[in-house]
Amino acid sequence: MAAHPPDKEHLDDHMVKMEVNLDDIPGEWLGYVMDLLFEAGANDVFYTPIYMKKNRPGILLQLLCSLKKVNTMKKILFSETTTLGVRYYPLTVHRLERTYKKVATEWGTVTVKEGIHDGIVVQRAPEFEECKTIAEQHHIPLKKVYEQVWHVMGEET
Amino acid sequence: MAAHPPDKEHLDDHMVKMEVNLDDIPGEWLGYVMDLLFEAGANDVFYTPIYMKKNRPGILLQLLCSLKKVNTMKKILFSETTTLGVRYYPLTVHRLERTYKKVATEWGTVTVKEGIHDGIVVQRAPEFEECKTIAEQHHIPLKKVYEQVWHVMGEET
Amino acid sequence: MAAHPPDKEHLDDHMVKMEVNLDDIPGEWLGYVMDLLFEAGANDVFYTPIYMKKNRPGILLQLLCSLKKVNTMKKILFSETTTLGVRYYPLTVHRLERTYKKVATEWGTVTVKEGIHDGIVVQRAPEFEECKTIAEQHHIPLKKVYEQVWHVMGEET
Amino acid sequence: MAAHPPDKEHLDDHMVKMEVNLDDIPGEWLGYVMDLLFEAGANDVFYTPIYMKKNRPGILLQLLCSLKKVNTMKKILFSETTTLGVRYYPLTVHRLERTYKKVATEWGTVTVKEGIHDGIVVQRAPEFEECKTIAEQHHIPLKKVYEQVWHVMGEET
Amino acid sequence: MAAHPPDKEHLDDHMVKMEVNLDDIPGEWLGYVMDLLFEAGANDVFYTPIYMKKNRPGILLQLLCSLKKVNTMKKILFSETTTLGVRYYPLTVHRLERTYKKVATEWGTVTVKEGIHDGIVVQRAPEFEECKTIAEQHHIPLKKVYEQVWHVMGEET
Amino acid sequence: MAAHPPDKEHLDDHMVKMEVNLDDIPGEWLGYVMDLLFEAGANDVFYTPIYMKKNRPGILLQLLCSLKKVNTMKKILFSETTTLGVRYYPLTVHRLERTYKKVATEWGTVTVKEGIHDGIVVQRAPEFEECKTIAEQHHIPLKKVYEQVWHVMGEET
Repeated sequence: MAAHPPDKEHLDDHMVKMEVNLDDIPGEWLGYVMDLLFEAGANDVFYTPIYMKKNRPGILLQLLCSLKKVNTMKKILFSETTTLGVRYYPLTVHRLERTYKKVATEWGTVTVKEGIHDGIVVQRAPEFEECKTIAEQHHIPLKKVYEQVWHVMGEET
Repeated sequence: MAAHPPDKEHLDDHMVKMEVNLDDIPGEWLGYVMDLLFEAGANDVFYTPIYMKKNRPGILLQLLCSLKKVNTMKKILFSETTTLGVRYYPLTVHRLERTYKKVATEWGTVTVKEGIHDGIVVQRAPEFEECKTIAEQHHIPLKKVYEQVWHVMGEET
Repeated sequence: MAAHPPDKEHLDDHMVKMEVNLDDIPGEWLGYVMDLLFEAGANDVFYTPIYMKKNRPGILLQLLCSLKKVNTMKKILFSETTTLGVRYYPLTVHRLERTYKKVATEWGTVTVKEGIHDGIVVQRAPEFEECKTIAEQHHIPLKKVYEQVWHVMGEET
Repeated sequence: MAAHPPDKEHLDDHMVKMEVNLDDIPGEWLGYVMDLLFEAGANDVFYTPIYMKKNRPGILLQLLCSLKKVNTMKKILFSETTTLGVRYYPLTVHRLERTYKKVATEWGTVTVKEGIHDGIVVQRAPEFEECKTIAEQHHIPLKKVYEQVWHVMGEET
Repeated sequence: MAAHPPDKEHLDDHMVKMEVNLDDIPGEWLGYVMDLLFEAGANDVFYTPIYMKKNRPGILLQLLCSLKKVNTMKKILFSETTTLGVRYYPLTVHRLERTYKKVATEWGTVTVKEGIHDGIVVQRAPEFEECKTIAEQHHIPLKKVYEQVWHVMGEET
Repeated sequence: MAAHPPDKEHLDDHMVKMEVNLDDIPGEWLGYVMDLLFEAGANDVFYTPIYMKKNRPGILLQLLCSLKKVNTMKKILFSETTTLGVRYYPLTVHRLERTYKKVATEWGTVTVKEGIHDGIVVQRAPEFEECKTIAEQHHIPLKKVYEQVWHVMGEET
C-alpha cells in the first residue's frame, strides 16, 4: 500500500517511537512539554509512571511521529526536558479508513467519526470536543449529549 | 436517613476502608485474594501500584466493607496475604436509589440499571455481564450490543 | 487557630476527601470532569490508576474540598460520572502562610510564591503560568526562564 | 536455532509486539478484550496506565504474538476496542527449555514447572492453578499450599 | 487492648496517615525524602503516581506515623518537598504478634519472622536483608537462598 | 558518526531494550534485581506497573544495554527473576555531548553536568549525589543546596 490518501486504510511504515526516561524534572513542566510536542506534529504523546533507581518515581515519555519529524522532536526533547539522551525505533502502523457523518441532536449536529476496516464500519465515535461544547453551552451533563448521539446513530444504521 | 430499604438513596455511615501495603507477595496470589474478599462480602476491592522503600514496586490493597465485616476481612487478609498489619478508618457513602429496566434488543432483553438522585435519573448503564453473554453467544462485538442498547434506551426516554 | 486570614499559616479541619471508583467511563470524559470539579471549587482533584475486579483497569477519582462544598461536588460526580455511590471522610490540612514576591528577569517580572512555616520561608516557587507565558512569547525553553528566576531569587536572599 | 521442539530452549525471532493507546473505552470492556485476545492465541496481553492529552487517564494495551497471528489480533482490536490504528514491531524472544515435575503434598500432587538455561535448572515454580484448586477444595490458605510444595521441592534437589 | 508490649497482637489507634500531592518536584529528590522520613520514625512511606490538573504527572506521597510524630513529619515535608499544605487523618492499625525463629541453611542461619493472629501462626517470612547478604557473599541467586529457607522451614512445622 | 569519544554527541545504534513481564515474584526481590543489573553494566533499568491476566498486578521490567551485554543481562534475568522468557529489540540512542563544570557554594564545590546539542548547552544539572552529601553533612534541606547552585550557575552564564 504505497501512495495513498491519508484517510484511506493503509499500513504506514515510516513511523518511529521515541522514548525518554525522566527523573529530574517536575511534573508541571511535563504538561507543557506534551503540548509543545503535539503542536510540532507528534501523532501521539503519552506518559507512563516508572520506578527508577534510588527509589525515584520517574516518568517514561513516549511519542509517535513520522520519520521526517524525528529531528524536530529531538530538538524539543533536548530543549524542554532534562534528558541527555533520546532513544527511538521504527514501527508499523495500520490505520483504518476514516469517514465522517453528521448526526442531528436537539442541541445541534455532532460529527461522528467512523473507522472502516476491509470496507466494514468497525468504529463509530462522536467527536468529543463537539459534545463537550454542547454540554457547556446548554448546561447539561456530557453523558446526556452522548446518550442522545448514540440513540440517533442507532436509527441511521 | 436511618432505616432504609437498601435500594433507596441513603447515606451509609457504617462503612470502613481497610488498607494493606504489600511488597513481598507475588501478583498471581493477589488475583486470588481479590476473589476471596469479594466472596466474603467486601463492597469493593482494588489495587494501586505503589513505590515502597528499597526500590520495591509494591501494591496497596484497599477494600470497602461494612463495619460488621471488619473481622471477616482481617481474617482473610492475615491468612492469605503476607501482611503483619491491617489499617482502617471509617467513611460515609452516599448511595443513589437503584432501579432496573428491561430493554429489548434483537438478541434478547438487557437489564439497564438506573441511579436516581433526588428523584431524577442520573445514571443509566446496561448490565455488563448480560451484554457480554449476548456478544459471546451471537459472535458479535461487545460494542455492537452496547450500541443497540443505547439506541433503544434513547427511544424510551 | 480558629478565625484566620486565609493566607496565614493555619490548621483547616473543615476539609473532606471524596472518592469514587470508576471502571465504566472513558478516559476522555474524565479530563472534562476534572475541569468541572475545579471550577466548582474543589481544592484539588486527582486520578490514580487502580486494578478492579474482572481484570478491569479503573480510575480512583479523589478530590479535596471544604465541608460546605460536599453537596456541590456530589451533584457533579453523580451527573457527570457513571458512579452510583460517593464516599468521603474528614481530614485536617496544615497550610503554610503564603506571600508573593516579584522577581525581575530580562523578559519581565515573575511572581515567586513563598511558603512560610513558623515564620521561616521554607518554599519558594516561581509561578508556573507566568514562566510558561514568557517562554511562549519569547520562544525560549521554559527551563531558561526558570534558570534565570532561580538565579535572581538567589541574589535577593 | 532454527527448527526446534517448542519446549526446548530457543530464540524465537518471529514474534511481534502490538500496541494500542485507548482513552475512549470503559475499563470494563477491556477486561473482556484481554480474554478474547488470549483465546485467539496471543502469547501475552497486558495493560499499562498512561497519561494522555487533555488530562485523560488512558490505557496502553500491549500484546505479544507470533507473526502469523498479526491479522487475527488486528481484527479483534479493531472490532472490540475503539482504536483507529494499531502499531507493531518485531522482537526476539529467548525462551528457556521447560520441563514438568510432580511433587506430592498431603492434599495431592502438584506440578512444578522448571525452566532450564544452558542445561541448568534456573526456574522452579508450582503451577498456580493447581495450588489454587487445592486451597479452595481443602479450605486452606493458598500460602500453606505453596509452603508445603516448596518444602517438598527442596527435598528432591 | 490498652497497654501492651509492642510485639504482642494489638490494636493501635494512635496512628495517622499523612498525604501530600506533588507536581513540582523532581523524582530524584523524592528518593531522598523517603529516606529522611523513615529515619525520622515514619512507620511506612510510599508513593503513588497520580494524574493532576493541566496534564501533569504527579506523585501522591503517603506516610504512616504515630500521633506524636506528626510534627516531626510535617517539618520534613515542608523543608524537603515543595508543598504548601499537608493533610492527615487518624486510622486504626491491627498488628499481629511477632516472633522470630532461626533457620539453618548451608550458608548460615536466617531469621524467619512469624506473625501470630489469635494464637495461630499465619505469617512466616525469611528476613529479606539476611537472605540478600547470603546471596551476595556466596554469589548465588537470591531465589536459591529463599528456596532452601522455605525447605527447612517446612521441616520444622 | 562511527568512532567517537563516549562523551561526544553521537548516535549509538548498538543498543538493545530488553523486557520481561513478571507476576510471580515479590516486589522486595525486584529492588535487588535492579541493583544487580546496574552493577553488571545496564545503561538503565526501570519498572512499570502492568495489569496482567486473572486480575494480577504485575511488573514490566525494562532495561537498556549495549548489544554486547545482552547475554550478561539474560543470565541475571534468568537467575534472579522468575521468568521463562526474555524479549528484546534494537534501538538507536542519540546522546548529547557531556561536559562538567565546578560551581562554588558556601558548603563546597558541586559538579554541574552539561549536555551539549549541536554545540549549544541545552542541559545543566547539578550532580544529585554531591548535593545530597552536602545536605546531609550540613543538616540543611536539599532544596537549599540546589537553590544556591542554581543561583551561582546563573552568574557564570
